[in-house]
Amino acid sequence: MSPVVIACQQLSPKIGAVEENTQSCRKAIREAARAGADYILLPELVTSGYAFESTEEALAAAQPPSGPAVRAWIEEARAAQVTVAGGFAELADNGTLYNSMAIVDETGLLAVYRKTHLWDREKLWFAPGEAVPPVVETAVGRVGLLICYDLEFPENIRSLALRGAELVAVATNWLNYPRPQGERPDGVINAMVSARFNRVFVACCDRVGTERGVEWSGGSAIIDELGWPLAEARHDVPDLIAAPCELARARDKRWTQYADMFGDSRPELYGVVTEGPAEQSRVQ
Amino acid sequence: MSPVVIACQQLSPKIGAVEENTQSCRKAIREAARAGADYILLPELVTSGYAFESTEEALAAAQPPSGPAVRAWIEEARAAQVTVAGGFAELADNGTLYNSMAIVDETGLLAVYRKTHLWDREKLWFAPGEAVPPVVETAVGRVGLLICYDLEFPENIRSLALRGAELVAVATNWLNYPRPQGERPDGVINAMVSARFNRVFVACCDRVGTERGVEWSGGSAIIDELGWPLAEARHDVPDLIAAPCELARARDKRWTQYADMFGDSRPELYGVVTEGPAEQSRVQ
Repeated sequence: MSPVVIACQQLSPKIGAVEENTQSCRKAIREAARAGADYILLPELVTSGYAFESTEEALAAAQPPSGPAVRAWIEEARAAQVTVAGGFAELADNGTLYNSMAIVDETGLLAVYRKTHLWDREKLWFAPGEAVPPVVETAVGRVGLLICYDLEFPENIRSLALRGAELVAVATNWLNYPRPQGERPDGVINAMVSARFNRVFVACCDRVGTERGVEWSGGSAIIDELGWPLAEARHDVPDLIAAPCELARARDKRWTQYADMFGDSRPELYGVVTEGPAEQSRVQ
Repeated sequence: MSPVVIACQQLSPKIGAVEENTQSCRKAIREAARAGADYILLPELVTSGYAFESTEEALAAAQPPSGPAVRAWIEEARAAQVTVAGGFAELADNGTLYNSMAIVDETGLLAVYRKTHLWDREKLWFAPGEAVPPVVETAVGRVGLLICYDLEFPENIRSLALRGAELVAVATNWLNYPRPQGERPDGVINAMVSARFNRVFVACCDRVGTERGVEWSGGSAIIDELGWPLAEARHDVPDLIAAPCELARARDKRWTQYADMFGDSRPELYGVVTEGPAEQSRVQ
């Protein structure tokens, strides 16, 4: 099986400027397709920006998946014969707002995922998704979707891997936390280990720039199923990264003759949760 | 609350040489205690070596927790007023062999943990443990125990953190897998993210050297609750590392005013497991 080219377009959307952001997305999709990409990932909330100050402001930047922002992605996907995924502020039929991700190809909208783990002040305007992150059959392979903070709950990517995801696409706006000199942004390290613990490829598309005092990490990366980065973005500027990935390698969960990542799991032991610390198991 | 000094003694045990290894452990505990350690971690199977070729050989190197190897740790812990944990080949009363970890202090044996996730050929001589990894109340704080491959199943450290572990002590023999130049051993990166995803301190005590053609990574590290290494061992030689750790910081799981690592968890969504890939959720 030949590799597919996975790309991340690390953009710098402008808060509330939906039309301008949509045009940036069009340009970004074309650029990545020209560079040979089969699958193009965009950041979280790329159509709306992130640092809202009120529900009204979030509402004004939100659209249904049938709106012009996601329609533009479908048009570009159709023109370039590629698959595109990215984040948008979703306005549901009942008026509820979600921090969502759409995945599209030349046939149209394949799936929408509503972020299930809302970070910090997102809770003030977005409702949490109630459906598990989906695994979507695409032209490049089986793609699982996650948004930003979702990745910090390892149960999410585990669930995607158990359901057959070969690539996990993470649309993200990672905060630029302080870190020791020479270290990668923490989000990239998180993604490396999430890939390795599940033997899936992971693509993370972050944003850059500062918005209302919030600074992002520019931590876009494409990571192989053993947890090593194949491509990493520059951390301080918009950037396009791409890497050929043999996604079929993610189907093999064996480490050695006797070691199998899924087969060695002991789910019967994982439900042990108590409110506080366990009693000391003092044996002598 | 004042910090406690956590230490890892990255040793190079000899296969089958239980008495000699026990003497090395005594010396290592004394050395670490002299250096100011309050809690001293030793590698997996430090009393027996690792690369057995038969059950008979493993059996010959195994002892009950009441045997001379763990007794020696208790004697040294008592003399130095420290807490000690490490791995040993355990011979159970019924003759079953386990890849186990003991934690001891001046009062004696606090707990034994039998590795629940056996790696590769370990399955040929060891039985898997049937009890969840324990959280043990010690003089330095609440310590959770894991052995090597256990860490690659993120459900284990999650379970320890939910039960109140402040420090997770990992006794390990990490294989020295090939890695891109400049990268840490994968086990260290795994431990960094495991710490951050649970906001617990993690100490990993690896071994070094080559044994019957098997090479270890020398990836001992002490990692803070945000996932950054406080101390890392040299990868090719026995080494003592130590770091002061304010373990109480692990009790706070809040990232921000509105973000709480445990509070933001959605366990009702994590049970979704199917045998194969899910049906495509095609919405258009």
